[in-house]
Parts: sequence; structure tokens; C-alpha cells
Amino acid sequence: MTSTANTISLSLPTTHNPSSLSKPKSLPDFYLRFRNQNPKLTRVGISVTSPNNRIRTLSTIRASTASVMEASSKEKALPTIVEVDLGNRSYPIYIGSGLLDQPELLQRHVHGKRVLVVTNSTVAPLYLDKVVDALTRGNPNVSVDSVILPDGEKYKNMETLMKVFDKAIESRLDRRCTFVALGGGVIGDMCGFAAASFLRGVNFIQIPTTVMAQVDSSVGGKTGINHPLGKNLIGAFYQPQCVLIDTDTLNTLPDRELASGLAEVIKYGLIRDAVFFEWQEKNMAALMARDPSAMAYAIKRSCENKAEVVSLDEKESGLRATLNLGHTFGHVSSRLRN
Amino acid sequence: MTSTANTISLSLPTTHNPSSLSKPKSLPDFYLRFRNQNPKLTRVGISVTSPNNRIRTLSTIRASTASVMEASSKEKALPTIVEVDLGNRSYPIYIGSGLLDQPELLQRHVHGKRVLVVTNSTVAPLYLDKVVDALTRGNPNVSVDSVILPDGEKYKNMETLMKVFDKAIESRLDRRCTFVALGGGVIGDMCGFAAASFLRGVNFIQIPTTVMAQVDSSVGGKTGINHPLGKNLIGAFYQPQCVLIDTDTLNTLPDRELASGLAEVIKYGLIRDAVFFEWQEKNMAALMARDPSAMAYAIKRSCENKAEVVSLDEKESGLRATLNLGHTFGHVSSRLRN
Repeated sequence: MTSTANTISLSLPTTHNPSSLSKPKSLPDFYLRFRNQNPKLTRVGISVTSPNNRIRTLSTIRASTASVMEASSKEKALPTIVEVDLGNRSYPIYIGSGLLDQPELLQRHVHGKRVLVVTNSTVAPLYLDKVVDALTRGNPNVSVDSVILPDGEKYKNMETLMKVFDKAIESRLDRRCTFVALGGGVIGDMCGFAAASFLRGVNFIQIPTTVMAQVDSSVGGKTGINHPLGKNLIGAFYQPQCVLIDTDTLNTLPDRELASGLAEVIKYGLIRDAVFFEWQEKNMAALMARDPSAMAYAIKRSCENKAEVVSLDEKESGLRATLNLGHTFGHVSSRLRN
Repeated sequence: MTSTANTISLSLPTTHNPSSLSKPKSLPDFYLRFRNQNPKLTRVGISVTSPNNRIRTLSTIRASTASVMEASSKEKALPTIVEVDLGNRSYPIYIGSGLLDQPELLQRHVHGKRVLVVTNSTVAPLYLDKVVDALTRGNPNVSVDSVILPDGEKYKNMETLMKVFDKAIESRLDRRCTFVALGGGVIGDMCGFAAASFLRGVNFIQIPTTVMAQVDSSVGGKTGINHPLGKNLIGAFYQPQCVLIDTDTLNTLPDRELASGLAEVIKYGLIRDAVFFEWQEKNMAALMARDPSAMAYAIKRSCENKAEVVSLDEKESGLRATLNLGHTFGHVSSRLRN
């Protein structure tokens, strides 16, 4: 398995490649055992990300877009709601299938009449029209501009961030506008920092489209960009008005990104939620098959876990640092190797 | 009088140039009459800044560094303290002569052992050594780095801001460091935004060295930079740990910057403090002569006024906008001319 994730990667050995079960000798790997009825899913390994962001490959992941997803995505169900409790910066996370077909969810959190959607060249062709429709349907007073950034962590820098400011200023947006992040963690982080800094802070909504962004970067208000000398060195703590997680967007997620997102889900079970961990053991097959109700539950529990930690330690002075599990492993790995 | 101030400029007609009393025809000017015992200071005019930042000249200002300043600057007096009440973001403003010779004032607000002083090429030769001494005297555990930016509003941009991040990262500063802004409003705004954004926020101290920065930009937490298409469009609301105003630094302030600073002082009397306004009438000569006790009082009352407004409306949703007097005039002027 290869991954761009910078924390933990999920590795599922398959029967096709038993040799991949061997553990790399130079890295401290941490293994969890899953009792799963699916014989293919007998073991989950957490591999360590090295500081230069290369991830040791243990195995190729087997995940597929399940047909069950297609069937249920047309239903208009009530969303699951996780409340992030941060005093006057509290906000809801909506989780469910088909939420982008429920315009009232987004529209109740749009302030003012002007919206800027920040997305990237991969996500825009898939979901930009849908999001613009959700923002404007039955709401003709709202006008939407968009800026499409190049896709990838290497563009998470000041130069790309300036494109967001350029667009906002050329569009003559004022303080009562709303920025909407549509994409994965990079888009969420950059759009969030742009929203925090444009006119010293405008409204901000997150529509994360990867599992990783849904369970991690969209919760807790960490925003920012990279500096040539290090990741996430420039940014802000800035909370959104709401986070809208439409699990249907996971239909188009590449397998390797599903895998790194699920590894993040496992992390919450591992570090602070034994009951959730047990649930994961029983439902890993459904998660790998992108079953929408299993996915919605896993996202909900992950968000609840993270929201609880963030509520107690918004600015990461202590407890919240426990969530930096991957980083810690990375540093350990780095020291062992040097 | 010429000025780079972007709000209000103070104009003092002199007996040498009586023709300058005539009011420019194309701009709406607002006049205040001062009853002053000094025959040279019979009238104060507030002229309007045009959007392209040119200021109509009514007269040349007469201000000089007074010898009384030199005499009193050696005393080690207790500072006047203005408390800015913003809940857990509250902070003190210390005002007085010789405060940079009292290291304990600064040192009690330094967090961690690493300090980055952000200043410019004009102020550094005058006060950087003094500030480094104040930070480190009797405190050998603290190490100080500094970054000297080019001087001027035209450098208040992302490119210059990146130099602050570059220096902070090259110096391997961590979250428990303190940024110190040493200079006028441009330095305060840029250093403040850098402090707000570096590692999503580090400690921050302001040492403003112009009257304008002392009474306006160092109070209230507005930080930021310009965009090519507009001023202060990118930034953050970010409060310092303390503001230290050593009135001795005004000894080296150019006359025109003293003038624009005093215009800001007059604004506070004009918009919300009649008693202070009366005091100004009686003490304008002393202020123009940079008398340290008059200056300290004027700065104190101005800071109190601004702090009161900011406390009630930190994020400028209503009341705080009344302080944007100059901007409002600028917009009016712009519309009248177009």
C-alpha cells in the first residue's frame, strides 16, 4: 500500500501476496489483531510514516465501491449531527448520505449573500456544480464564486493561498461573505486559513470529501499552509460555521485515500475508545466496502472523539497532543534511524 | 504639512504663512477651534485623506524635540498602566519615560526562552540594542534573534511577512517563543500577524515607537498586511501580551509623524471624550513640544478611549467602526470626487 497520509496508514495483507506480511526491519511497527469473519481481513497493521513522508508498504489494500452505496445514496435521510462544543465558536457536523441534496442544511449557515467555494482540479469536476446548486437552489439572492486550486500537498503554500485572496478581492467580497472548502485536508486547511485571514476573518463552511478530512482535519479548527522548511508552520486556529459530510462523496475516493482515512478512524479506537474499537473489529469489512451506514457511524464516532478532545483543549496545550499519534511515531522513527 | 498617515492629519497654521489658512475647495474639511495661550497655535484643522493617500497640505507643522524631554528621560518612574479588558485576552499597556531601562516590565511578559524582535532599518539602529538589553539583562537564559525589515508602508506585504517566518523557522523557534514588534504601525501590524500565524499563534509584545502606533495600532489587536489591490485586506485579530510605550522613543520621531499621531489623539477627544478635548486645548503647546508628561497623559487617555471601545466590540461589528473616522472621510471624499 502506498499513501500520501502523513499520520498512520492502514495495511491489510491479502491472500494474494503473503510475503507482504513480513514486517520491515528498520521501522517500529505497531500491530492490532482483528477477529473478522471475512478471511481476507485478518490483520491490520499500523505502519510508521517517515519524516520525508514516505510510507512503508506492507500490503495492497482491497477496498471497492460497493453497490449498496449506490442504492442508499438517493434516500433523503436526516443527518447525524455531532456538536462541537467550543462556547461561542461551537458548530455542528452533519453526517449522512445525500446531504448535498438537502440545500437547507448548507444555506442555514451561509452568512451574507456572497459565497466563495475553494476547491481543487480533482474535486471540482465531480462536486462543484452540486455544491453551487445546494448553495443557490431556492435562494436566488446568493451568488457563488469559485477558485479551483491545483491538487496536491505540494501546492499547500503561500503562493497558492494568495490565489484565494486574489479571487476574493477581485470578486469584491466583504466581511459578510462565506468561504466554503470543498475537498480533502489540503483544501480544508488552506481555505480555512484564507477565511481566518481575509479581512481578519470571514465565515467558513467545510465540505470534506475524503475520510481523512472528515474525521480529522475538519474537526478542531486547525488551518494553515506549509513553509518550504516544514509542514503546517503558518496558520490559525479557526472554527467553521458547520461541517457537512456527505458520505456519497466517498464513492469517488481512491482506495489508498480510503485506507489512510480508515487508519485515522482506527486511531480513535486505539487511543481512547475501546467500545468503538470493538465495533471496528466487527465492521471492518463493511467499512472497506464503503457501506454508507457503517461509514457514517465510524465518522460520527471519530468526530465525537476528536470533538471531545478539542473541546477540552482547543489550542493544543496538552491533551490534544495525544491526537498527534502519527507525528509522534514519525519522530520516533526519525530518531531511531539517525 | 505632508504626511503618510492614512486617517486624519493635523494642520497648524503659523504666522509665517497666513495664506495657508484658506480651505481647499474640493475637499470637505472639518475645523476645530482651540483657545490656546500660545499665539502660534490658534487653530487646528483636520484635513481629509484622499483614497490615493495624498493629504491636502494646509500648513507646515511646527514641532521640535524639547530639551525638557532630555532632562526627564533619565528618571526611573513607575509607568502609567492602561488595562485592556478582553477576558482571557486582556493585557496591560505600560506608558512612561525610560521604560526600556526597566527590564522587569518586558521580561515578565516573555514566555519561553526564545525571542524574535521584528523591526525595520530605521528603528533598528536607534533602539534594537536597547530592547535586546532590556530583554536579556539579568536574564541569561533568554536568547534573542532579530529580523530587520525594510522601512515603509510599501513593504507591508506577503513577501516581507515571509521574511519573518523564514527567520523564525531558521532560528528553530517553537510555540513557546515570543515575537516583539519594535517600530511603528507597519511593523506592529506585520509582526502581530506573523505572531498570530506562526505555528498557529505565539506570544507577542508590542513596543510602538510612533505616536500613531502608540495610540491606535498597538491597541485592539488589528494585525495584517496589504494586498496589491487594497490595504489591510489580509490579517487577524490578535492581542499582545503587553504593549510597552517608552515616550523617550518619541525623541527621534520626525515632525510629520508626530503631527499625524497627535491628529489621532485629537480624534479621541473629538468623537467621544469632551473632557480630554478640553485638556488638549490647554496642552497642545506642550504636546507639540513633546513634553513627556503631557505626552504620556495624552497617550494614556487615547489608549483608554480606544481600549474601552475595543472591549465592547473586539471584532468591530458596530461600535468599533466609529474609530474608522479617517476611513469614512476618505470614502466620502472619494465619492464626492467621482
